[in-house]
Amino acid sequence: MYKAKVVITRRSSILDPQGKAVEIGAMHLGLKNIRNTRIGKYIEFDVDTTDRTTAEKEVNNYCDKLLSNPIMEDFDFTLEEVK
Amino acid sequence: MYKAKVVITRRSSILDPQGKAVEIGAMHLGLKNIRNTRIGKYIEFDVDTTDRTTAEKEVNNYCDKLLSNPIMEDFDFTLEEVK
Repeated sequence: MYKAKVVITRRSSILDPQGKAVEIGAMHLGLKNIRNTRIGKYIEFDVDTTDRTTAEKEVNNYCDKLLSNPIMEDFDFTLEEVK
Repeated sequence: MYKAKVVITRRSSILDPQGKAVEIGAMHLGLKNIRNTRIGKYIEFDVDTTDRTTAEKEVNNYCDKLLSNPIMEDFDFTLEEVK
């Protein structure tokens, strides 16, 4: 069994209006040093196999076909064996 | 200047219907080993200060008051100095 942790981010060339909006909120809260907020996704799941290559392939497929939007997002993951 | 990377996750006692839904999609795609998908947020931003304590305080406030929902989510962050 492997535990996968995936981070999905928008490409830096693509605007992030949600991040901009929260940042305006931060300013109103008195947090004056926050810059360039960008909001992405963090996804955790288990991969029920003992073979690392199979696990990696499955995670790649999952990220590419379902979790991320390959047109404007990048993904990155770590895979860690658990007992 | 510091770069903050924040991960926000739902507490494990709280159901994640969005994760469940994507997982059903995974099954339809033929990814049969994916279990316990949980979807959280990943947020990156800069903190424009040279003092680490100030930066930490500001990140904590930002996470607690704006980025996360303290009733059902936990947050965790790393802070890394950049030039």
